[in-house]
Amino acid sequence: MEVEDLKIEPGRANAKPGDRAADFAENTPPGEQIKPTRRSFLRGSVIAAGAAATGVAGASRSSAEALPVPESSMAMGDPIPEKGYGMPIEFEEHVKRHRTDVLVNKQNFSDWSMTPLQHQTGIITPNGLFFERHHNGVARIDPEQHRLVIHGLVEQPLVFTMSDLMRYPSVSRFHFLECSGNGLTDWTKAASTTVQQSHGLLSCAQWTGVPLSWLLAEAGVKPEAKWVMFEGADGSGHLRSIPIEKVMDDALLAYGQNGEMLRAEQGYPIRAIFPGWEGNTNVKWLRRIKLVDQPDQIRGETARYSDPMPGGKWRQFSMVMECKSVITSPSGGMSLKGPGLYEIQGFAWSGNGKVTNVDITLDGGRTWQEAQLEDPVLDKCLTRFRYRWNWEGGPAKIASRAVDSTGYVQPTVEDLARVREITGFVQHHNGIFPWAVSQTGEVTNAIA
Amino acid sequence: MEVEDLKIEPGRANAKPGDRAADFAENTPPGEQIKPTRRSFLRGSVIAAGAAATGVAGASRSSAEALPVPESSMAMGDPIPEKGYGMPIEFEEHVKRHRTDVLVNKQNFSDWSMTPLQHQTGIITPNGLFFERHHNGVARIDPEQHRLVIHGLVEQPLVFTMSDLMRYPSVSRFHFLECSGNGLTDWTKAASTTVQQSHGLLSCAQWTGVPLSWLLAEAGVKPEAKWVMFEGADGSGHLRSIPIEKVMDDALLAYGQNGEMLRAEQGYPIRAIFPGWEGNTNVKWLRRIKLVDQPDQIRGETARYSDPMPGGKWRQFSMVMECKSVITSPSGGMSLKGPGLYEIQGFAWSGNGKVTNVDITLDGGRTWQEAQLEDPVLDKCLTRFRYRWNWEGGPAKIASRAVDSTGYVQPTVEDLARVREITGFVQHHNGIFPWAVSQTGEVTNAIA
Repeated sequence: MEVEDLKIEPGRANAKPGDRAADFAENTPPGEQIKPTRRSFLRGSVIAAGAAATGVAGASRSSAEALPVPESSMAMGDPIPEKGYGMPIEFEEHVKRHRTDVLVNKQNFSDWSMTPLQHQTGIITPNGLFFERHHNGVARIDPEQHRLVIHGLVEQPLVFTMSDLMRYPSVSRFHFLECSGNGLTDWTKAASTTVQQSHGLLSCAQWTGVPLSWLLAEAGVKPEAKWVMFEGADGSGHLRSIPIEKVMDDALLAYGQNGEMLRAEQGYPIRAIFPGWEGNTNVKWLRRIKLVDQPDQIRGETARYSDPMPGGKWRQFSMVMECKSVITSPSGGMSLKGPGLYEIQGFAWSGNGKVTNVDITLDGGRTWQEAQLEDPVLDKCLTRFRYRWNWEGGPAKIASRAVDSTGYVQPTVEDLARVREITGFVQHHNGIFPWAVSQTGEVTNAIA
Repeated sequence: MEVEDLKIEPGRANAKPGDRAADFAENTPPGEQIKPTRRSFLRGSVIAAGAAATGVAGASRSSAEALPVPESSMAMGDPIPEKGYGMPIEFEEHVKRHRTDVLVNKQNFSDWSMTPLQHQTGIITPNGLFFERHHNGVARIDPEQHRLVIHGLVEQPLVFTMSDLMRYPSVSRFHFLECSGNGLTDWTKAASTTVQQSHGLLSCAQWTGVPLSWLLAEAGVKPEAKWVMFEGADGSGHLRSIPIEKVMDDALLAYGQNGEMLRAEQGYPIRAIFPGWEGNTNVKWLRRIKLVDQPDQIRGETARYSDPMPGGKWRQFSMVMECKSVITSPSGGMSLKGPGLYEIQGFAWSGNGKVTNVDITLDGGRTWQEAQLEDPVLDKCLTRFRYRWNWEGGPAKIASRAVDSTGYVQPTVEDLARVREITGFVQHHNGIFPWAVSQTGEVTNAIA
């Protein structure tokens, strides 16, 4: 093939190479057929030399020296900006967090924005794209003025400045964070178009802070303290009660996220992190920790984050985010251009431990194949899975199913519906989530 | 102590709680003495309950309910911005990457900026603070126009679009990146004030891309190919030759960094990653990969990145960044306010494998104690170490010494000077780096 033949077909309007949807549409140079190849990912095989003949993934043979020298090679680049804090390049402006269009929100204060999971590489969500959920907007707090109180059923109430807290020894840990409402629009009908809309209230970071058990040891916990109330300094006074066992186990008071101080929208200057527990328990802009003998029974605990059950009952305090996974590529809104090798990728996670297995179905759940988990596989952290798929061009229904270190297997929505009452926008949707691939390669939400 | 006593002393001008230098200065409320406590970090102990009586880390006893409700609790917060990509809060504007003031640079194109390691939490450097080194400014490349060529001693030259490359299966791996010139101002005299100036050409990220060995298998490597030349599409035409063994071992063509596409200043849309090798080999804005039978012997290989040796000889191709570590807290420019418990923290890394041990000296190298390494400890990646130090108030000289999985022990500058010629701004400084703590707690560069 000559170099001048290497024009890329226009594909969809506004498609950018950073956009995986566009990648799938644009990867095959015109006139070149991708022939399926069969390799076992589990044997660690690579793209074999013989694959060149089939043009796997669209690499083109050329007289390379004939390629023109690009303009950038013949010009001076931009000087380093004065600001000292970099931003993404303009070609990636389409990668952004935003509210789903599936739910109509008529005000800007109890609001959210969702992470573009379809664009995420690796397991770390950049802080600029980390999902948000605010109950009364984003508080902006001067850290020099901020105080954190520990009181209630303790021997000695304590007040901390941020400087006090940052003087303590600290720990850094990778953990996912997921809103309990993630997926609530797509229980029984396909409301969301993209995985950002269906699963984007999910992100992952390395958190740095002080284990709360160290501070409680200093305050002296009275034996009658069984629950701990956390209150934010935002305009909603967001409040949750947490069992003391979780607090003493692995709760962090976090001030660092992915190598820097928390962003305002993540609770700067300090927030609670309860690894693996629903997002709203991880109280942001934390100002008060009160040890009590029973939960506070606020609205968030009696109504908002409880689950309707069969027979008119409600389940309270289902705060652990159970094992779950989703395919992020290919996912809704992408299109596959022609049969050939595609790497199915996605995330798996569990609030109860590590992910031990992810299986992939290509036929709507009739058969399952094992995906590869990418190291490091960490406790209560996103794990990326990969599976090489030779799409032969017919319709397919793809989904992932995760298993965690407790042996729990991610359920189907039907499984969940047998034990819970799935009516309306209920919380805690960890069901298997299918995508349909059409005969022509269009990928759509296949929840039904 | 009454709540109204909790005023923080002004400390240094412009000091912010996010600034660890300030933290060390501000952590003790006036009138409260921090009494040293002795605990073994290696036994996994926590701040003991008894510590409350000593006011460890400055927590203050108070009648917590008397604290006023903060303004932020009584106001609506800010709505989510339209932009969809977040930035740090204004209180953290002092945390930025910038050129060292130690070296005078009279133009803006062969330039660099250094990571504020003293502010970094965890092991991931945020992309906005990742160090930069450009030989002719920052190229801004339209990914739709970009082409990558593999040619030279191959059976079949190949040209890739970005869409081609992103169609391949990929991998994500955590690796540090360090400029070979990191530390060159501070071999034998204390030129740098802060660890950002002395060690800030060091950062760490999770990189996502395609193992180059997969693409070379597709091109078909001829047996006479022994080296591989990499050329950037920037105005410097930055070029390096790499032995084919390294290329086939673990080289990546990376397009993703910390969960998103590369930033412009990191080589968008694609760069080479040679895990553990000096920064300048990791060619950015990559446009050409040529398989050759010998290195190109460009200036960067014969002069710029070679090491003067005793007897007038020069060592070429010392591309592995050998095992190294540095204490980032407390570090130059910080001050300890009063005797008491301080957590010494820092980074250790090795281009030859994993860090297995870090030892800390408090007495200028006479005695050493083992620091704790924080999980996960990954191959050719920053590892954070922690050591609890009860500073009793006298002068101290603190430093860290790392050991890697090959058994290599980080040398002293004196060790290095015995086998190399340390004259002027020579590269590859992996020597032990000491900080002096004065009687009054001021921390300064102790290289001499």
